[in-house]
Amino acid sequence: MNEVIHVLNNHRSVRDFQQKPVTEHQIDVMMRAAMAAPNWANGQQVTIIEIQNKETQHELSILAGNQTWVKEAPVFFVFCLDFYRAKLAAEINNRPLEIVHNIEFALVGSTDVGIALSNTIAAAESMNLGIVPVGGIRKDPQKVIEMLDLPKYVFPVAGLAVGHPEGLPDQKPRLPIRAVHHKEKYDKEHVQRDINKYDTTYSSYLSERTDGKESANWSEKTAAFYDTGFEAYEKNVPPALKKQGFTYW
Amino acid sequence: MNEVIHVLNNHRSVRDFQQKPVTEHQIDVMMRAAMAAPNWANGQQVTIIEIQNKETQHELSILAGNQTWVKEAPVFFVFCLDFYRAKLAAEINNRPLEIVHNIEFALVGSTDVGIALSNTIAAAESMNLGIVPVGGIRKDPQKVIEMLDLPKYVFPVAGLAVGHPEGLPDQKPRLPIRAVHHKEKYDKEHVQRDINKYDTTYSSYLSERTDGKESANWSEKTAAFYDTGFEAYEKNVPPALKKQGFTYW
Repeated sequence: MNEVIHVLNNHRSVRDFQQKPVTEHQIDVMMRAAMAAPNWANGQQVTIIEIQNKETQHELSILAGNQTWVKEAPVFFVFCLDFYRAKLAAEINNRPLEIVHNIEFALVGSTDVGIALSNTIAAAESMNLGIVPVGGIRKDPQKVIEMLDLPKYVFPVAGLAVGHPEGLPDQKPRLPIRAVHHKEKYDKEHVQRDINKYDTTYSSYLSERTDGKESANWSEKTAAFYDTGFEAYEKNVPPALKKQGFTYW
Repeated sequence: MNEVIHVLNNHRSVRDFQQKPVTEHQIDVMMRAAMAAPNWANGQQVTIIEIQNKETQHELSILAGNQTWVKEAPVFFVFCLDFYRAKLAAEINNRPLEIVHNIEFALVGSTDVGIALSNTIAAAESMNLGIVPVGGIRKDPQKVIEMLDLPKYVFPVAGLAVGHPEGLPDQKPRLPIRAVHHKEKYDKEHVQRDINKYDTTYSSYLSERTDGKESANWSEKTAAFYDTGFEAYEKNVPPALKKQGFTYW
């Protein structure tokens, strides 16, 4: 196993950081790795806002649903999908920018964010830094947009807390590989069986980890999240997108 | 510079492959790396379809706008956003699955796809394989959905051609780093200046690469793409999404 494969497979979410700072050099290495990633049609639809201002981190940690690691990490990044630069390019050349009026903006922009985010994570973990992605910045995206002065056609998709890990957390078990990696066609029957298997694995993992206090399985947790756990996103994301100029219906 | 940083920064798009196959072991390593990536709320919203059937690859290469590397690569992957498993989880637990009726499905699903895609790319490149992502599978997504038997709540976001590179292509110059990496707040003025700089860099790069035959700058190319180059996506993605059960307006 080469070093790259080792780092990728060794990923875990770190929510407890040492006081030790992340250096300017380390940040620069992460940002350059993010930019080296492929992107859609060379549009480079990502902007990354680095935040070290403790007040901003404090506010973001509350907006994200009291995620203390957002303020306690030495540095926090906000990954935005960005069509503001494409809008400038369109204006310079007197062309319309149709993508902001089509659901495609969300597919393209978020894929580009995911790719850049993943490269940032691999770069950070290769330098023995720990990370946790924070989707919770979309619980109240309008406030985040105002705090960070995001112009029209820019939207905050995911945060990333980075620092030196305090201790080494567990790796959560994943779905069986054949539930995710299919050959030639989608295999629905396999998926159904694998979810049942995974529910057992996940429930045991959770029970062991909490000394028997929790034992919900994956289906229960996922179903509950996408029912009641998801309400802030459901309510606040669409109006904030519309205000940023994305009219996709 | 460690090996991970080196591999990430050395990325380039490969469209010319040797006949040599990608082994089952290499594919397994890539898929496991993809699954080790972080994902949203442990929902694991990605499915990857591995395609080695030459007829399927041939059809996909045409659908993607005659991208020959889609059929010539020894293996082609289709990365899908997947809420079919979440739907099963919701049904088992008698809960509604609200996310498929909200734009959030696109943000979450595509971010998860981007993260998994990026890990797959890093794993492939660390084994000296070459890759090119193919967004063109969304030019006619309904056909792709039918070919791959994708169930409701699953949508093909990006393809990835993988093989042993024939030759080493250039690295395209990227936007100046300060256009993408901002500190504390979004810096609009900087972005405007950097686009002007990048237009000059990009035009020279293209001119050198084509012996003066092409010299469009980045703004021109991006503006043209999001005006006339983008029509198939604009027209075909929304109805295909709706047919898959995503009612996001």
